Amino acid sequence: MRMNTRHSRSSFRSHQAPMKKVVTIGGGTGSFMLLSGLKHYPIELSAIVSMADDGGSTGILRDELGVLPPGDVRQCLAALSDSSEMLRKLMNYRFEEGGLAGHSFGNLFLSALEKVTGNFSEAVTEAARILSVKGEVIPVTETDTKLYMELKNGKLLRGEHEINTSVKVERVGVKRVFLDPRPKANPLAIRRILEADLIVIGPGNHYCSIVPNLLVKGIPEAIRQSKAKVVYNCNLVSKRWHTDAFVLEDYAEEIDRYLGQSRIDYVTYNSKRPSESLLRKYADEAVLTQRQADSQQRRYRVIRADLLDTRPVRREKADKIAATRSFIRHDAEKLSKVLIMLLELAEYENILRDIE
Amino acid sequence: MRMNTRHSRSSFRSHQAPMKKVVTIGGGTGSFMLLSGLKHYPIELSAIVSMADDGGSTGILRDELGVLPPGDVRQCLAALSDSSEMLRKLMNYRFEEGGLAGHSFGNLFLSALEKVTGNFSEAVTEAARILSVKGEVIPVTETDTKLYMELKNGKLLRGEHEINTSVKVERVGVKRVFLDPRPKANPLAIRRILEADLIVIGPGNHYCSIVPNLLVKGIPEAIRQSKAKVVYNCNLVSKRWHTDAFVLEDYAEEIDRYLGQSRIDYVTYNSKRPSESLLRKYADEAVLTQRQADSQQRRYRVIRADLLDTRPVRREKADKIAATRSFIRHDAEKLSKVLIMLLELAEYENILRDIE
Repeated sequence: MRMNTRHSRSSFRSHQAPMKKVVTIGGGTGSFMLLSGLKHYPIELSAIVSMADDGGSTGILRDELGVLPPGDVRQCLAALSDSSEMLRKLMNYRFEEGGLAGHSFGNLFLSALEKVTGNFSEAVTEAARILSVKGEVIPVTETDTKLYMELKNGKLLRGEHEINTSVKVERVGVKRVFLDPRPKANPLAIRRILEADLIVIGPGNHYCSIVPNLLVKGIPEAIRQSKAKVVYNCNLVSKRWHTDAFVLEDYAEEIDRYLGQSRIDYVTYNSKRPSESLLRKYADEAVLTQRQADSQQRRYRVIRADLLDTRPVRREKADKIAATRSFIRHDAEKLSKVLIMLLELAEYENILRDIE
Repeated sequence: MRMNTRHSRSSFRSHQAPMKKVVTIGGGTGSFMLLSGLKHYPIELSAIVSMADDGGSTGILRDELGVLPPGDVRQCLAALSDSSEMLRKLMNYRFEEGGLAGHSFGNLFLSALEKVTGNFSEAVTEAARILSVKGEVIPVTETDTKLYMELKNGKLLRGEHEINTSVKVERVGVKRVFLDPRPKANPLAIRRILEADLIVIGPGNHYCSIVPNLLVKGIPEAIRQSKAKVVYNCNLVSKRWHTDAFVLEDYAEEIDRYLGQSRIDYVTYNSKRPSESLLRKYADEAVLTQRQADSQQRRYRVIRADLLDTRPVRREKADKIAATRSFIRHDAEKLSKVLIMLLELAEYENILRDIE
């Protein structure tokens, strides 16, 4: 199947037909990239966002102000903002000096809004209005909760930050990942999942951005119940010490395990090899995600496409977390095109089933 | 002269006539109050704002980030914002815990904008756009400068904060107040003053919010040159240790001295006595501004009116500066009505002069 994607962006849906509903599930820079691409299409877009972050600026705000974690929500708001480039830059701006060093302005914005409105969801809604956000940003839960990882040697890693920086995860092996207290899903997240035509999971940090969404009570149930096609965007590279040995099939199997059934319909997979110089430069940091050598039985279809962002990346010195992120990353536009194609494909498949 | 002020608010100017231009000069809560009232009238409003603040949240941001002082500008933006009450509250919200304690969100907003745009005036313009500000907020200067006060015993007080908290000012006597480096006025401030129909000075902290505007090169010259009527809103109460012995005539004379001539046309003066319980409660803190006993020769006319805000005031614990502010304060609506009346009066006086 080939598509004239330029044409599809402007007219793939006539204005009489109701807009297709796309729900993304993730957090962090993965969601920022994905939403920055998808927002240009005429779809109803809802971004469900992980609430397990407790590192960096977000961690300090949680500890000191007792607010819910603003970091992931901020990235989604910035991505979907239709206001000036300057305002989007402002949301992701990090102070570099003094007592504010490392704080992202957008985090302070959301935390102050939470204090003024008295409620995180209301703060997100207000922020979305101020930033002229296209679509919706939905915290996966409104419960103040913490992510834990129990390793196979019995050691308990407490909090997203500790998990994220542990070098033992893969070596020792993961026994289980859980949230405590176990939170209930935001009812709006459930509703949007049930109404969706396409549910897009990932890309993003596997244990710290993706899985925490699937640990929220009601989310896997809703995804199983939804008529939507489910796409999983497989990470381009492994996370060092966490998923070094993961191949595409491992990621997909884990996601399906958290979903409680073989629910994934499509897995997107990058077929474009990064330049050798880039690979050499980051040889210590990340390994390209491979496929399993022997073909095995699987329900999902793998969509191979060039999804690679080949533009150079600029790192900000104030963002200590960004310094650990990969330089080998998805291209928002390329990935969006593939997802919109899958959205169309899903429609034809539904029709075929109906006339069977 | 009596006015139907309800009528005047909606139709005092027909839509064919060009709107009258009002320029306010001040800073701090005085400007916040004044602008909150004036913004409801169909006038072209420009708020010229002092840039000498270096205490509290503003002082920390100046020291640590090297930004220009955001505090006074923030208050004016919040006052003139036509967006939701919530957004105005947010601008004046102060963090109460942790490393952010005492910082006003609005200050962080302006400082981050200054960092992102690279320029304070641009930051103010952007903020005004985001906050749907009615009118203009104009920093009196874009030069990074500091306020000094030399006392009659030779002691030099360095910075607005040190001056503001000194208990010696009135006892020892003020030799001179100056800005160093001596800044040039923002050209837009000059232009607005020259075009104005009415220039409104004060109310506000005499040495720290009002006078610093008049120390900026070009401001007194422009006020002298302007055809505008000049109103001075005399403070309702003295500032302890600074202006305890000041009567209305002293304030007006000092302002005229900084302006370089007897330039004030009107002085507004509150005629409503606060309740005895309020006066007793704050007997140690503030003294009601009195008139001079013997009538003297003066160019300006004194407008006596009930200008007193009789609503109770709520203090925020995070705002250490607000805790030093007076509970005996102007009512924004009452003062605005008087000023709009003076704007009308000025027009008739001009006509009379023309047909003389």
